[in-house]
Amino acid sequence: MPELRAPTPAFLDGLRELLGPAGLREGADAAPYLRDMRDIAPGRAAAVLRPGTVEEAAEIVRRCAEARVGLVPHAGGTGLVGGQLRPEGVEGMVVSTERLNRVREVNPDDDVMIVEAGVILADAQAAAEAAGRLFPLSIASEGSARIGGVLGTNAGGLNVLRYGMARDLCLGVEAVLPDGSILRSLKRLRKDNTGYDLRGLLIGSEGTLGLVTAACLRLFPRPAEQQAAFVAVTSPDAALALLHHVRAAVGEQLSAFELLSGVGIGFALEHVAGTRCPVDPVPEWSVLMEVGGGEGIGEALEGALATAFEAGLATDGALSQSDQQRADFWRLRESIPEGNRKVGSVASHDISLPLSRVARFMEEAAPALRAIAPDLRLNPFGHLGDGNLHYNLFPAVGRTRDEYAQAKGALTRVVHDLTHAHGGSISAEHGIGRFKAEDLVRYGDPAKLAAMRAIKAALDPHGIMNPGAVLG
Amino acid sequence: MPELRAPTPAFLDGLRELLGPAGLREGADAAPYLRDMRDIAPGRAAAVLRPGTVEEAAEIVRRCAEARVGLVPHAGGTGLVGGQLRPEGVEGMVVSTERLNRVREVNPDDDVMIVEAGVILADAQAAAEAAGRLFPLSIASEGSARIGGVLGTNAGGLNVLRYGMARDLCLGVEAVLPDGSILRSLKRLRKDNTGYDLRGLLIGSEGTLGLVTAACLRLFPRPAEQQAAFVAVTSPDAALALLHHVRAAVGEQLSAFELLSGVGIGFALEHVAGTRCPVDPVPEWSVLMEVGGGEGIGEALEGALATAFEAGLATDGALSQSDQQRADFWRLRESIPEGNRKVGSVASHDISLPLSRVARFMEEAAPALRAIAPDLRLNPFGHLGDGNLHYNLFPAVGRTRDEYAQAKGALTRVVHDLTHAHGGSISAEHGIGRFKAEDLVRYGDPAKLAAMRAIKAALDPHGIMNPGAVLG
Repeated sequence: MPELRAPTPAFLDGLRELLGPAGLREGADAAPYLRDMRDIAPGRAAAVLRPGTVEEAAEIVRRCAEARVGLVPHAGGTGLVGGQLRPEGVEGMVVSTERLNRVREVNPDDDVMIVEAGVILADAQAAAEAAGRLFPLSIASEGSARIGGVLGTNAGGLNVLRYGMARDLCLGVEAVLPDGSILRSLKRLRKDNTGYDLRGLLIGSEGTLGLVTAACLRLFPRPAEQQAAFVAVTSPDAALALLHHVRAAVGEQLSAFELLSGVGIGFALEHVAGTRCPVDPVPEWSVLMEVGGGEGIGEALEGALATAFEAGLATDGALSQSDQQRADFWRLRESIPEGNRKVGSVASHDISLPLSRVARFMEEAAPALRAIAPDLRLNPFGHLGDGNLHYNLFPAVGRTRDEYAQAKGALTRVVHDLTHAHGGSISAEHGIGRFKAEDLVRYGDPAKLAAMRAIKAALDPHGIMNPGAVLG
Repeated sequence: MPELRAPTPAFLDGLRELLGPAGLREGADAAPYLRDMRDIAPGRAAAVLRPGTVEEAAEIVRRCAEARVGLVPHAGGTGLVGGQLRPEGVEGMVVSTERLNRVREVNPDDDVMIVEAGVILADAQAAAEAAGRLFPLSIASEGSARIGGVLGTNAGGLNVLRYGMARDLCLGVEAVLPDGSILRSLKRLRKDNTGYDLRGLLIGSEGTLGLVTAACLRLFPRPAEQQAAFVAVTSPDAALALLHHVRAAVGEQLSAFELLSGVGIGFALEHVAGTRCPVDPVPEWSVLMEVGGGEGIGEALEGALATAFEAGLATDGALSQSDQQRADFWRLRESIPEGNRKVGSVASHDISLPLSRVARFMEEAAPALRAIAPDLRLNPFGHLGDGNLHYNLFPAVGRTRDEYAQAKGALTRVVHDLTHAHGGSISAEHGIGRFKAEDLVRYGDPAKLAAMRAIKAALDPHGIMNPGAVLG
């Protein structure tokens, strides 16, 4: 493990001079960059650096490499695994990409846009829409998440089923590598076999191999017609059968397929104003799906659902009759995380499973968890279409999360052990950050871990980039 | 540059003992592994190793690492850039994955199949079809290309527009790393953010970072209806306008969009039996496109083409009236490479360009090439939908390629310089191999090259894996 050093006063003076008053935040001004929304463990940093150009970012990294000063990259700060906060170790710096916030180009002829790392995801979506195109990546935090973090963590979200993860949506990157050199590779090509896939390696490396400063993102045609359906099903297994049934009918035009539990809907209805459930009473299990395509795609969904009802795959449901109603369906889905926060989870898990294992996992997980804490409330929900569940555990009515604090580790261990046993992933879309670094070692393939460490040591020999994240 | 050693007789004896008679080929038996279809420069090797299990493959690599003996991976041998042939340097070994040829599993519930590296691509497609699914990767050499090579080179082909490259179609890999360790990462997950993307790094590394022994490949629903159209256009620019027009109508259901030149069609008609052109006379430029989707997709294509004719984007054309006719259209397209070989190209180029630059590139390239060789015949054709052209140059009628041998270097330089100037790639889908290693240095981003070299040195410190390929 290379040794890091705290920045000296002279080092900080040099950065102040380089970056000017807008480029450096200290003391109370730095505090917002050192907290996350869950407020678990605040980060520490001598200062927050806010480069205004990629060249300034490169000079920061070069100086930190020379002085062996650690750097924690910071984008929108919405990460859920502590990747953007470094609470321990020798004090280093935070580098925020928020001033690199230009949409450099939106090119509908090439179906791409070039955006800087500080652009907010929702603004990138809006820029695409203004050019008559779709940038399909959509996550709950899109109003604050920034492109640098979206790529750093290889964000997933609602539309992975159809359009893929952040890595799949990015054709090229500009990045500062750990020696301060600038990788200028904003390719806008679907096909480019000139050497190793550094783009793919940087995306999802959570800032441990470099700092993405800009990206060339793929754009798609906006579907002429979109329709959503909210459908009650008897079980997660039935939801999967419904998924296969609908996909056989509409293929890749199925863009989202979300599982909702009655528990989760209940949390949203109780704690988030303006939510309502399209089906009464609230089903124990339901699915929210959406299709988009040419004219007639809504009809195709309706037809598929009609045969699904006949086959007993669905028991009740509603098709959106307007864009407003479609938005209302989604509002319910998107209120579940907020409802969860209000209730306060005992433990939350971002897992993915092979589709063929989801039902069995659920059957096995519930009794194993209840053997530890019999009165737990379970709220598994999420992107069932791509096997990704947010498998979250809540206190019984009238109890608080603190009363389960002792059991938390054992509960998470049950979920992760079972996930691993079924060939799943203990981090589907949130990444490893600092919270899951130990789990990566526990469940990761040893050859993969060794190769990761070798790559990290080769590209970042002084270990300055996001120290402690991913590889611990 | 690490130094390699020739295998000693004792080393070869040890391998003979390890692998048995089926596992080692020498002398005349090794010759077929040391030639390629273009027969340019034969490879050299002390023996060809044919492991029957991943453990045998790992033991081979481990021993070669220990003894500093170079290894050239060999799959179907259809590569076009010399990646599978090592004509120079200290004599080493070839390792063929052809005995690792099991389809381990086809799982329509998970929409995946697990195939070993020696499985022929066409057999993988057939295994998917037998399970009611589509494995969409399709290339001219699919009858001999093997999965290991398809992944090693990140193969592209006809359906990238809709389904992506080999890297996009692979969820997980099993591979032997250069130290002989086995990466066991046959994940079947759409979402998995547990650490660096080694899968993506190995795919397209052309055997220089490890030997892929098996892969988990994505399967798709088979379209209920498919239709092809052969359409004459006035120029490549008109072809691009037609592309945007059709995509606006059918979105991602457009699975192929190929540009054909009158020169290329002429070669096929003259030299390949059983080919015919759907439009008479042969157009100077034409497009072969295909859609696949639910019922009505053919009608949607027909509607889009009707408005395209009205708008003057197309001048003549034919819609396939049967699967047979669709196959005939494709037979013409797929006969063009064979026609090219019969005529004998002066130089061929596998380039990609941003769509917005294709027309200008073509306008600039032709006069620049004719300034060197005024009577050249140009046959640019290929996967226009993803900006990938096989920009090939042929001798004038009555002359031979040898008469242009002096000019070849300058001609290629013109094509590659212009491609690079327009933000394109000098290797869209064939890879770098040995033939383009110098071009990678000439046109590659210096920071990218430095990072590639660092990764190579970290994972393969003795330089045993495919020495001389990609990084020279």
